[in-house]
Amino acid sequence: MALIVQKYGGTSIGSIERIQNVARRVAKWKNAGNDMIVVVSAMSGETNRLIDLAKSIQAQPDPRELDVVASTGEQVTIGLLSMALMELGVPARSYTGWQISMLTDSAHNKARILEIDEQNMRADLAAGRVIVVAGFQGVDAAGNITTLGRGGSDTSGVAMAAALRADECQIFTDVDGVYTTDPRIVPQARRLRTITFEEMLEMAGLGSKVLQIRAVEFAGKFQVKLRVLSSLTEPDIRVDEEGDSGTLITFEEDKQMEQALVSGIAFNRDEAKVTVLGVPDKPGIAFAILDPIAKANIEVDVIVQNVGSEGTTDFSFTVHRNDLMRTMDLLTKVKKDIGAKKLIGDDKICKLGLVGVGMRSHVGVASKMFEALAADGINIQMVSTSEIKITVVIDEKYMELAVRTLHKAFGLDEPTEPAMPV
Amino acid sequence: MALIVQKYGGTSIGSIERIQNVARRVAKWKNAGNDMIVVVSAMSGETNRLIDLAKSIQAQPDPRELDVVASTGEQVTIGLLSMALMELGVPARSYTGWQISMLTDSAHNKARILEIDEQNMRADLAAGRVIVVAGFQGVDAAGNITTLGRGGSDTSGVAMAAALRADECQIFTDVDGVYTTDPRIVPQARRLRTITFEEMLEMAGLGSKVLQIRAVEFAGKFQVKLRVLSSLTEPDIRVDEEGDSGTLITFEEDKQMEQALVSGIAFNRDEAKVTVLGVPDKPGIAFAILDPIAKANIEVDVIVQNVGSEGTTDFSFTVHRNDLMRTMDLLTKVKKDIGAKKLIGDDKICKLGLVGVGMRSHVGVASKMFEALAADGINIQMVSTSEIKITVVIDEKYMELAVRTLHKAFGLDEPTEPAMPV
Repeated sequence: MALIVQKYGGTSIGSIERIQNVARRVAKWKNAGNDMIVVVSAMSGETNRLIDLAKSIQAQPDPRELDVVASTGEQVTIGLLSMALMELGVPARSYTGWQISMLTDSAHNKARILEIDEQNMRADLAAGRVIVVAGFQGVDAAGNITTLGRGGSDTSGVAMAAALRADECQIFTDVDGVYTTDPRIVPQARRLRTITFEEMLEMAGLGSKVLQIRAVEFAGKFQVKLRVLSSLTEPDIRVDEEGDSGTLITFEEDKQMEQALVSGIAFNRDEAKVTVLGVPDKPGIAFAILDPIAKANIEVDVIVQNVGSEGTTDFSFTVHRNDLMRTMDLLTKVKKDIGAKKLIGDDKICKLGLVGVGMRSHVGVASKMFEALAADGINIQMVSTSEIKITVVIDEKYMELAVRTLHKAFGLDEPTEPAMPV
Repeated sequence: MALIVQKYGGTSIGSIERIQNVARRVAKWKNAGNDMIVVVSAMSGETNRLIDLAKSIQAQPDPRELDVVASTGEQVTIGLLSMALMELGVPARSYTGWQISMLTDSAHNKARILEIDEQNMRADLAAGRVIVVAGFQGVDAAGNITTLGRGGSDTSGVAMAAALRADECQIFTDVDGVYTTDPRIVPQARRLRTITFEEMLEMAGLGSKVLQIRAVEFAGKFQVKLRVLSSLTEPDIRVDEEGDSGTLITFEEDKQMEQALVSGIAFNRDEAKVTVLGVPDKPGIAFAILDPIAKANIEVDVIVQNVGSEGTTDFSFTVHRNDLMRTMDLLTKVKKDIGAKKLIGDDKICKLGLVGVGMRSHVGVASKMFEALAADGINIQMVSTSEIKITVVIDEKYMELAVRTLHKAFGLDEPTEPAMPV
């Protein structure tokens, strides 16, 4: 008998019929002898509806009150799913964030989970009940309702699996796994049967929308076995030993010995590039540039700095496009203080990354990448590398072309594992 | 400086604009130097939408899970109203039922309030915050979400006023007070400036929809000064010493010395009449008839028993129309056991009552009532009396006629107090 945590997103429970489908799937797993905990999001569109209501009153809704309003979406679905399970003869009980003491910090709209009181739930599991938990929400030490931010339900699911030491955490979504890249851009993209935790983290960070990055980090920290699956396929598909359903995120690299150099290509065009040119090359400059950005709570992603000529250097980084104007405002003053020559902002860029643990033991991945891009006349504006990832920033108009070119160049188009029925 | 509890129903906060109107009204009261607690319902239509969602999954929704779902409506409005207040520069904070420990019993869908922890709120009031509380909901000792049943927000408001010893509890609704009878039936109906607690209780019990009867009982028990007002009039109308706004429910009968015999006429046609004919006239018969009804949780209203001929008696009572079929089923067996002659159910009736503390010291109210009805050819099927109320059951087709006739007969058409601008 295994303890399984399943998490269903908004699309998976977007209608009464889909809620009933989810109930049937959960019932099958329960009737197969598993202890089941189900974490759900709000019905698709509901969270947006609630946030719009709030914004029609306050352009910048009060964070505490926004959480009070936004957290109701999940509260509705836990009740409905519990009813749907009971209707199938499966005992079930719903819990809001505060009812299971999903304790978080007090950072409204983006709270972090601190602790979960598992005792309340153990009794239910012992009594044979399916536990249905509201994702996305928690409660702080003072009893205020908090939410974990967009996509936080994935994190709730992983946190539940970690707290109760579940055998597997299954994230159900509207795709059937993690792909080598976005199939809408490259039709030849293949589903990966497994991906390592580190690769998944790099893929998520680069904008692969399958899993929220915080959820992946959480899974890594607590060694939670995570699987991404589609909720839109037949409810009776079972995960077998060979993992022929969805994509399993593993912690064992040994099994990856034979895998390709590159596991996948991730990309996004949500970012903008900021470059400070002709900065005097002396200690403390990077800090002088980034400190005001960090203090303004603007998240910085890729950072590159290169030695320039005549004792100066050029400093570039990317921020979310929505933050570009604020960033430029902040740096106008900094530019003067540090005596830089020029400040350039560009929001017509895209970020593109090759990910793969296979890179570790192979040289030449970067040069092969640059060669392929050059052959298509694509100029590279920034390069940043880690052990298992190479990130480049290019003009956004080349995004689709670059993804297709690299997908082919690294052999991702050809099936390197037996094709599975999807 | 007074402590005022205001309660707003679903119609009063049925749109963003109306929520903003309520915020303006609350702000005026707050800025006039009062400590303010506001209790709100869900936006009109929302509770029905949620219950319909539940019923589309379970014909008889699980009571615990129904409360989880239904209680979200109020949670949305407390957040929105708090935001609207902040937008006006008024500090505000929302509380769900569990956040203020609105402790109830565990009777889901119709829970009773046991206790409120006022300490949490005193600090907010001291800090100058308006407290916005979700009506209709509470939490039981085990931490389950409960709801108080339809119209329970009135009760929440009164309970808050009682717990915090508020100076006045103002129930805002879509009518501007309690009328001598329903103005849709009798256009000459007048707004009462005051009504005694007992009269209000009798009016509410007879179907006057202005206030939930449990709220009135609660107010009586804890001597809460209660006022019914319209939320649709200008927000700057103030209640003055003469009580020229809404209807004040008083506990002081002295002020009523000069009032008419009858304060108002209430009526409803939600009930059905059940008659057991030819019951052997011996002890224990009433119990034998009503015990199975009570055990089936069917509420019984008017009960009359009369001595019949030949050692038998006739026993009649009214139940809600929805319960008529179940009641008849239950009594079919009882009829046999007690040897009654006949069992009759009739759902084409209406219940109509004259209410007034003035009746106490005046004879002849009943005979005047019967005379007026007889003059219009209206047959009386049942009569039941209390100190300040005479209730009759008549054929429902005569309802409007009977109300108009009695309104005129008891002088309610003529203004006995100066007409007020409404």
